[in-house]
Amino acid sequence: MTAVSDEQVREGVDEDTLRRLAAPAPEEVEQLDAWWRAANYLTIGQIYLQGNPLLREPLAPKHIKPRLLGHWGTSPGLSLIYAHVSRLIRHTGQQAIYLAGPGHGGPALVAAGYLEGTYSGIYPHVSQDEAGMSRLFRQFSSPGGIPSHVSVTTPGSIHEGGELGYVLVHAFGAVMDNPDLLAVAVVGDGEAETGPLEGSWKGVSFLNPERDGAVLPILHLNGAKIAGPTVLARKDPAEVRRLLGGHGYDVLEVEGSDLPGMHLRFAAVLADAWARIRAIQHRARTGAWDGTRPRWPLIVLRSPKGWTGPEQVDGVQVAGTWRAHQVPLSGVRDNPEHLAILESWLRSYRPEELFDADGAPTEPVRSLAPRGDLRMSASPHADGGRLTRELALPDFRDYAVDVPRPARTRAESTRRLGELLRDVYRDNPDTFRLFCPDETNSNRLGAVFEESDRAFAERVTGDDVAISRNGRVMEVLSEHNCHGWLEGYTLTGRHGMFATYEAFAMVSASQTVQHGKWLQEAGRLPWRAKVPSLNVLLTSTAWRNDHNGFSHQGPGLIQVVLTQRGDVARVYLPPDANCLLSVADHCLRSRSYINLIVIDKQPQLQWLGIDQAIEHCARGAGIWDWAGTDDGTGDPDIVLACAGDVVTMETVAAARILRERLPGLKVRVVNVVDLMTLMRPKDHPHGMNGTLFTELFTDTVDVVFAFHGYPGAIHQLVHGRPDADRFRVRGFIEEGTTTTPFDMTVRNRASRYHLVMDAINNARRLPRGASDLMAWCERKLAEHQAYVVEHLEDMPEVRDWSLDGKD
Amino acid sequence: MTAVSDEQVREGVDEDTLRRLAAPAPEEVEQLDAWWRAANYLTIGQIYLQGNPLLREPLAPKHIKPRLLGHWGTSPGLSLIYAHVSRLIRHTGQQAIYLAGPGHGGPALVAAGYLEGTYSGIYPHVSQDEAGMSRLFRQFSSPGGIPSHVSVTTPGSIHEGGELGYVLVHAFGAVMDNPDLLAVAVVGDGEAETGPLEGSWKGVSFLNPERDGAVLPILHLNGAKIAGPTVLARKDPAEVRRLLGGHGYDVLEVEGSDLPGMHLRFAAVLADAWARIRAIQHRARTGAWDGTRPRWPLIVLRSPKGWTGPEQVDGVQVAGTWRAHQVPLSGVRDNPEHLAILESWLRSYRPEELFDADGAPTEPVRSLAPRGDLRMSASPHADGGRLTRELALPDFRDYAVDVPRPARTRAESTRRLGELLRDVYRDNPDTFRLFCPDETNSNRLGAVFEESDRAFAERVTGDDVAISRNGRVMEVLSEHNCHGWLEGYTLTGRHGMFATYEAFAMVSASQTVQHGKWLQEAGRLPWRAKVPSLNVLLTSTAWRNDHNGFSHQGPGLIQVVLTQRGDVARVYLPPDANCLLSVADHCLRSRSYINLIVIDKQPQLQWLGIDQAIEHCARGAGIWDWAGTDDGTGDPDIVLACAGDVVTMETVAAARILRERLPGLKVRVVNVVDLMTLMRPKDHPHGMNGTLFTELFTDTVDVVFAFHGYPGAIHQLVHGRPDADRFRVRGFIEEGTTTTPFDMTVRNRASRYHLVMDAINNARRLPRGASDLMAWCERKLAEHQAYVVEHLEDMPEVRDWSLDGKD
Repeated sequence: MTAVSDEQVREGVDEDTLRRLAAPAPEEVEQLDAWWRAANYLTIGQIYLQGNPLLREPLAPKHIKPRLLGHWGTSPGLSLIYAHVSRLIRHTGQQAIYLAGPGHGGPALVAAGYLEGTYSGIYPHVSQDEAGMSRLFRQFSSPGGIPSHVSVTTPGSIHEGGELGYVLVHAFGAVMDNPDLLAVAVVGDGEAETGPLEGSWKGVSFLNPERDGAVLPILHLNGAKIAGPTVLARKDPAEVRRLLGGHGYDVLEVEGSDLPGMHLRFAAVLADAWARIRAIQHRARTGAWDGTRPRWPLIVLRSPKGWTGPEQVDGVQVAGTWRAHQVPLSGVRDNPEHLAILESWLRSYRPEELFDADGAPTEPVRSLAPRGDLRMSASPHADGGRLTRELALPDFRDYAVDVPRPARTRAESTRRLGELLRDVYRDNPDTFRLFCPDETNSNRLGAVFEESDRAFAERVTGDDVAISRNGRVMEVLSEHNCHGWLEGYTLTGRHGMFATYEAFAMVSASQTVQHGKWLQEAGRLPWRAKVPSLNVLLTSTAWRNDHNGFSHQGPGLIQVVLTQRGDVARVYLPPDANCLLSVADHCLRSRSYINLIVIDKQPQLQWLGIDQAIEHCARGAGIWDWAGTDDGTGDPDIVLACAGDVVTMETVAAARILRERLPGLKVRVVNVVDLMTLMRPKDHPHGMNGTLFTELFTDTVDVVFAFHGYPGAIHQLVHGRPDADRFRVRGFIEEGTTTTPFDMTVRNRASRYHLVMDAINNARRLPRGASDLMAWCERKLAEHQAYVVEHLEDMPEVRDWSLDGKD
Repeated sequence: MTAVSDEQVREGVDEDTLRRLAAPAPEEVEQLDAWWRAANYLTIGQIYLQGNPLLREPLAPKHIKPRLLGHWGTSPGLSLIYAHVSRLIRHTGQQAIYLAGPGHGGPALVAAGYLEGTYSGIYPHVSQDEAGMSRLFRQFSSPGGIPSHVSVTTPGSIHEGGELGYVLVHAFGAVMDNPDLLAVAVVGDGEAETGPLEGSWKGVSFLNPERDGAVLPILHLNGAKIAGPTVLARKDPAEVRRLLGGHGYDVLEVEGSDLPGMHLRFAAVLADAWARIRAIQHRARTGAWDGTRPRWPLIVLRSPKGWTGPEQVDGVQVAGTWRAHQVPLSGVRDNPEHLAILESWLRSYRPEELFDADGAPTEPVRSLAPRGDLRMSASPHADGGRLTRELALPDFRDYAVDVPRPARTRAESTRRLGELLRDVYRDNPDTFRLFCPDETNSNRLGAVFEESDRAFAERVTGDDVAISRNGRVMEVLSEHNCHGWLEGYTLTGRHGMFATYEAFAMVSASQTVQHGKWLQEAGRLPWRAKVPSLNVLLTSTAWRNDHNGFSHQGPGLIQVVLTQRGDVARVYLPPDANCLLSVADHCLRSRSYINLIVIDKQPQLQWLGIDQAIEHCARGAGIWDWAGTDDGTGDPDIVLACAGDVVTMETVAAARILRERLPGLKVRVVNVVDLMTLMRPKDHPHGMNGTLFTELFTDTVDVVFAFHGYPGAIHQLVHGRPDADRFRVRGFIEEGTTTTPFDMTVRNRASRYHLVMDAINNARRLPRGASDLMAWCERKLAEHQAYVVEHLEDMPEVRDWSLDGKD
């Protein structure tokens, strides 16, 4: 590790600036403290007050909200840090964003934006005067108002902090390829107990000081969560230092509650941390870096929970304990003693010094904030759509598989996508990254390594391939890190893709859900610019358990994304390489969606030439004339529909069996790429109108639908369509083991033979020979069973699972 | 922290035993090595061979499997550890189970069970002879055979290791209240990169050496994952020591590949670790413990990936690199050189010394294993159903809320459950635990603290409440830990419940999925005894966002559990306290299910007396005569159905509005507690038969269904029921913010007024006055909107959201 020596700390930093920064003059301490008091005052006001916001009259029960909600405990610490980072920015011009891990300290961050003027700029009715302050207070945690944690509505935020654990992944994602950005990430000690957070300290093992910005984690140990102590707060401080040192950080510490001592000490430590960051970056950017992983600084801040709040209430200690977590004083309307405590608590901040006659922040308060876009609440990095550049995308047609006729060519579909992504890397050297547990090669996307190594800041050896500190392909065996980094990367305006095995997609499902909710809410705020979409590619699907067991496979993420609102959720199931290219191109160009793309990586039959694929994907679903025997009069006897690569293969095979063995039956084959087209237009913008739906599926003929996911998903999607009960869905029904893909379709009752039998059972009319064909299918299935039992060791892939061989 | 001194290490341990253990005699090293060679041989055989299992003839292409699958890289390390722990058990009688974090080292664990004779005992056709060995090899990674990782079929396993990250949570869960058990948990360095694993080291902060057993983590740093190095393997070893020391462990290290050196060194370190564990336990159990958190030992084992395998293949280094991860030699059938390498590799283990003329393990191999249930592959702890004792359950009727008439009493329903759980703690002092992030009190389950503190091994202060090292209520702000501990606890035969906010249920959704799959597969294995169910209680539901925003709320876990197989998945939505008690009693008595129970914690109207509740829950769904105006002739004009507490309230309110304002309309109210009753019997064992379904829902009358979860779930559940399209579902449609529960129902279009309008729009016939009532409903909704806008700060809960007040 590169430890930064004392002399090196000075490198790249103006000595005078650093000295001033580290030792604030008394008037600066006044300024810091004034801003901090103002932020704390506004925080308490949001929790408690519905009137008399400036305490111009004695506090009375009618000024108190009828229901007290909010989290006080973490807020003073969050505001102290905010004040000091603001001062740092003013002294240095550092671009910074602020991520509050303890997101339920929302009122503190709202207060910060309000004091900086950003809030009133965006929400003019919340003006910097008494009336506006009253609205600020009343809107908090109220119906129609704003939520109690740092939300999409909070200017300067890219991190909500509702579900704990992701503050560092968002911070690291934000600074990748963002050399001038500092992400200040406050980690709460509650949050620090979560798995995702513990796993995210290792972001430094993937950061390059030359081209990436820096994350400054501030571990805020205030000791308690809702109802008890936290693990890290109760460990021996030496053990905490060991832990964080072991994660690779230089640990700096500040502890206490004395004032102005804490201001002085925190200013000194923050200056030290910043100087260390600048020194690391300076050395890396001036060629003085030896290439070893820097020891980035980290601050441990120990301050009491609910600091500056009531020490004791009803004879019980509150400040510094879990009792300060939310609302330290309850029943204020009816309890005169509590009301008096609240009033003196509020007055202890001396609001008359902080707000002028109109209610606007006074000069000492206002002057702390940086100017313009340097205010953290106004940073364009936290409204990344403002910085988003169009991705330079090569023509995806150039990567097409040549498919002169359907079902003749085999290809690993994702390999073509890998070639496209390689050139996206080439043409966008600082605005695109691929994130993947450690499966880029396994997912057939390895072509990207022709343009970029994997990023790795730890030691590299001669046996390593395509790994270096200059790499920009992100591989870490943590879906939480991959997903979260991509979120941070896109929310700050850059593009990317998360590729993972379908089996592991549920690990980060709650992140997918939350990012979707973020995008949904952001879409309702005119001031938030659209950001690049979150593209998720799932390969190694549940249907290809070639050497994994049943333990974790499943198409669950489709189910999850389907529940999101139609303005955000997109699910694509391209059946082949050319469709994948078309879909991927569309997704990479799109904004503010969750794009879920599901396709396997193994060699698979190709169906459509690139032009056909483009047309097919543009429609989202279409009739495959060549596969069926429908004569085009719109009068089939049965519709065989499919969505997903493996089941498409089975559907086409079933149609061929029917064509050959029951030629009198009119079979229509419909393939669905864009799953959302099945919904009604009122439920999803991609939903087909009724006419189109009827053109594909008729109004009355039964549909045998072979689906990649759980069958119930189709039932819910076609609900409300004409006679929706006629859809007979085959899909993944939780059957699996290490076996061939064909055997997987048999186990899940979605094989070609099952589909043929379904077709016969549900066709509008049946030509002679149907019962013979039923018997034949049963025989084929019995033969398969016998074959499996007999040839335990002989994966019968080629024999059974193709169209170009014999059945 | 309690550091164990050298003298203390000797405490509680027989000196001679320890000395022998630490320094194996040459013949013991021979024995260890023979067993290890045999395990490695069998591992390679599983990956490569379909014939000639004992190499009785020269290896030929026909002996090689046509498709080579499996993971060699991790296996020799896993087997080395297994051999040494087996020896430890033989010397000490220690009860131990083995958890392989790198679960894809399946063949190594299968080989161990085979060598110990357990495998042939369970699967007699895989006998300990040449024919059985051949079957052992051929079944591996073959259709109809066994998967490539440690699966449910592997004797001795409670941990699959398919999705990485959970080996320590399972291990810690297994040893809780299991004082005599040692869980040896091998953590792969790939797995160590995941968030859940990083977050699970802190298990020691919750372990009590007096009443709990011990976990011995062995971090196996073999350096690489699929395609590259791991973070921990490439860090400075000093930094790794700091990290693990910071997590609270005493770090012992073994490194190398020399033989017999590694045997000698590993034996010494393992003996040391075991002695430290015994000393900690001895001191705790003899009153000599000072109560501070022990520093439990941990072993870091550095050995080459693919150790003892081919060093170089085709001129490229394989052993010790990521290339050894899966199959180090490919194309063996067609490549004579590779075939020759494989043969000499196999022969390097000298199989003729390891297996006798029949193919059975020879005495030197067999003699390493402990006897009977002490064999780790035969441990009853790993087949926990064998050890499961019935939970002593008080009569749940004793906790009932008195409900003389529906909709008059309010109660926090979960508080009654808390009282029941308190007495479950009292009556089952070592076989029941509650697991909860840090919300036990918040979830109104705090009565349990009358019987047990929260478990906490770190420092406790005077301000702490109900926290001590003797506590058995498990609170850690990590859903991954809570869920995983409960899995480990139940798989080893004990009972428990995981209670969490609905908002955070998706964090551990992939664990719920995997545990469900485990139970599904276990149900097909006659030798695995049923284990206590995994009970998940979700409170603070999406409908009660009182002070959280929209960021993460949602009923997603219902959707997830619905996709599991019917033999495992159960979803209950009790509408009130008495139904909750009945459901909870049922779930706590059940075996091998995933029981998902969803109910809010806030004061809510109570509907049913305890006897009615019992009857209602036994049926799973029923008509609420008192709520509707159906005259019992089975001929309603509309059915109002509901599942979930908040929507039940709205449904009853809607029915009352209809009764009062449209008395001519025959309205039937149906409440569903057991969601699975909606499915057809062929899809779920709880599914109502057609007659019952028709009795509740008729065959033709439209059903307005108010559902707690996403509406699509009901559509998929009623698919296949008569005219399923007539179900009009209202549910959670991803609308929310900090607001009142009533406003939540309005935003999601599921309020009483929406339900009334739906009823009017879909009723079979309409009495006069319907259009007036439509207009009235619209007016009421407009009034609500106006009220919300006007009274931003005034949570209008009591005003609008009740039945006992005025509308």
